Amino acid sequence: MSRFFSDKFSSLAPYVPGEQPKDMQYIKLNTNESPFPPPKSVVEAARVEAQKAQLYSDPECSLLVEKAAETFGVKKTQLLFTNGSDEILNFAFMAFCDPSTPAVFPDITYGFYKVFAALHGVPYREIPLKEDFSIDYRDYLGVNATVFIANPNAPTGMLLGVREIEEILKSNPDHVVVIDEAYVDFGGESCIPLTQKYDNLLVTQTFSKSRSLAGARLGVGIASENLIADLNVIKYSTNPYNVNRMTMAAGYASLCEAEHFSKTCAVIEKNREYTAKKLKEMGFEVLDSKTNFLFARNEKIGGEELYQKLKERGVLVRHFKAERIKDFNRVSIGTLRQMDIFLENVRQILLEIKQ
Amino acid sequence: MSRFFSDKFSSLAPYVPGEQPKDMQYIKLNTNESPFPPPKSVVEAARVEAQKAQLYSDPECSLLVEKAAETFGVKKTQLLFTNGSDEILNFAFMAFCDPSTPAVFPDITYGFYKVFAALHGVPYREIPLKEDFSIDYRDYLGVNATVFIANPNAPTGMLLGVREIEEILKSNPDHVVVIDEAYVDFGGESCIPLTQKYDNLLVTQTFSKSRSLAGARLGVGIASENLIADLNVIKYSTNPYNVNRMTMAAGYASLCEAEHFSKTCAVIEKNREYTAKKLKEMGFEVLDSKTNFLFARNEKIGGEELYQKLKERGVLVRHFKAERIKDFNRVSIGTLRQMDIFLENVRQILLEIKQ
Repeated sequence: MSRFFSDKFSSLAPYVPGEQPKDMQYIKLNTNESPFPPPKSVVEAARVEAQKAQLYSDPECSLLVEKAAETFGVKKTQLLFTNGSDEILNFAFMAFCDPSTPAVFPDITYGFYKVFAALHGVPYREIPLKEDFSIDYRDYLGVNATVFIANPNAPTGMLLGVREIEEILKSNPDHVVVIDEAYVDFGGESCIPLTQKYDNLLVTQTFSKSRSLAGARLGVGIASENLIADLNVIKYSTNPYNVNRMTMAAGYASLCEAEHFSKTCAVIEKNREYTAKKLKEMGFEVLDSKTNFLFARNEKIGGEELYQKLKERGVLVRHFKAERIKDFNRVSIGTLRQMDIFLENVRQILLEIKQ
Repeated sequence: MSRFFSDKFSSLAPYVPGEQPKDMQYIKLNTNESPFPPPKSVVEAARVEAQKAQLYSDPECSLLVEKAAETFGVKKTQLLFTNGSDEILNFAFMAFCDPSTPAVFPDITYGFYKVFAALHGVPYREIPLKEDFSIDYRDYLGVNATVFIANPNAPTGMLLGVREIEEILKSNPDHVVVIDEAYVDFGGESCIPLTQKYDNLLVTQTFSKSRSLAGARLGVGIASENLIADLNVIKYSTNPYNVNRMTMAAGYASLCEAEHFSKTCAVIEKNREYTAKKLKEMGFEVLDSKTNFLFARNEKIGGEELYQKLKERGVLVRHFKAERIKDFNRVSIGTLRQMDIFLENVRQILLEIKQ
């Protein structure tokens, strides 16, 4: 830290993204990427736009917004696209939290929420997940704070029902409830329809997971027109051209490939169920996931030890050191071949330990 | 504004980007874009990366940073890439300003500085340009504030010398001085070499103008290692994957095309001098520009009137309503053909007025 750095950030601990080691080729199951590259039409759309890259991108993302409004069944004025969904979440912390409007979120969830809160000087309270790692919606009723819930939650993978979220919305009419649906396309049910009924709901989604565009960076917020107008004030005071031409076109093209992505999501769900079954057969406890990852532990081996031994064997998964979940590993769902290699390595590691 | 919007933004006036009307085809000379599309190698680099868009981009931008370190003659740890240079400027306001560390910048300059200050609750002071619209470097000596200077300045186009900037750096050893070099490649001299000597200097550049990548969104900060470390804390607390794959590759490829871009910049400089000469022949006062735009006024016609009449004729330039500069228009430099159309329309408008 330099002597010029503002004191307000003296204890800020940044987010740590999943590792990307370059020492060897890994089976990479640590950052919840899709194993499927984007379809040709998406690549072609990006290429065509790169030819016009000397011209600024459309700050209103007009064509993309039009297509997304049709896809999500909302009005164009209910949408805001961002440079990944981290950006819309950041905007939400700026717009709807401040020293007198704290944030609440689960103790075990997307690690960035507490970083955003710290960055913007927002007081926050972490609400413990239940013993079984599920969210008890009753803990969020009338909390007098801005609510952030990842649904399905990460890294647990577990889903909260839309009706339970509706109860949270009803009981917090004077506070915004942000539902982060990064993983909703792998078996969850979206809250987007509730944006027509509740003016305090912001749903965020990403094109990173189910639409194979993690490296293109595209996120979106869906909410009542008034919330989107607020978020636009932040956007136009931060980075009006936040979505570049190639990503905007890739996002549009990906929305035109609904059938392709519903097929790839189905494959991932199938591979997830297969992997969960095999892990359980090896004695793992596997949380019920509606995402493109599994969260699992085995009393025969510590979470960090399994993570390390897998890494030595060229398989990367993600381990978190937080006390409540340190026995677990989060395993992204890849192709069947990748999952078989992962499973075979786990099997060998468990055998080694036994001896 | 919704009832949920944080009170701290109640009077925030967002930045207004240059208009992008869709009612007809315009000769677009209003947002300082390059008239030259990126070279084939840049388009191809973006295409190749789009094929791998399912994988997150490298948060460290390793290859791009390596190439840029070589290009700019600095260490890799002295560089930070962002989603356009607006993002690095935003980070600088966050990191190096706060209620007890105000910002200073010229009264006539890039309109976003005061938006960033307002966004982050940073007090700021605007220092008037001299009568002739140049910056008097003596106004910035020992100001006890974080200094933001666009050099060349916008929308005036006028350049401050590196030696004068060095005086500003020396006299403000306890404050960061940000030199925004968005337009430096059109005849200016960069302060980058001074980053080796002064730990309080942050130079920002963009790939939008001289490198034909406005629509790809790529900016960069160059500074002492300590300042870059601070800015990285902000980046990793905001959006670790802030630069997408396609843009990262396009940026790398553009740095490999140094000769191409030095040629296109030379063409733009030549067209600028041609246009300035013709405007002066028609009675315009034209400020001495070292950028890819001209800032000019003519006592025979008001700035807004000329802007409007040009727009009716299909030529877009940029007019600012601020009192001191309302007689001027800012005209981006395009191809010779575009400039001739612009000049011919100006000629006709002046003739009409005479009658």
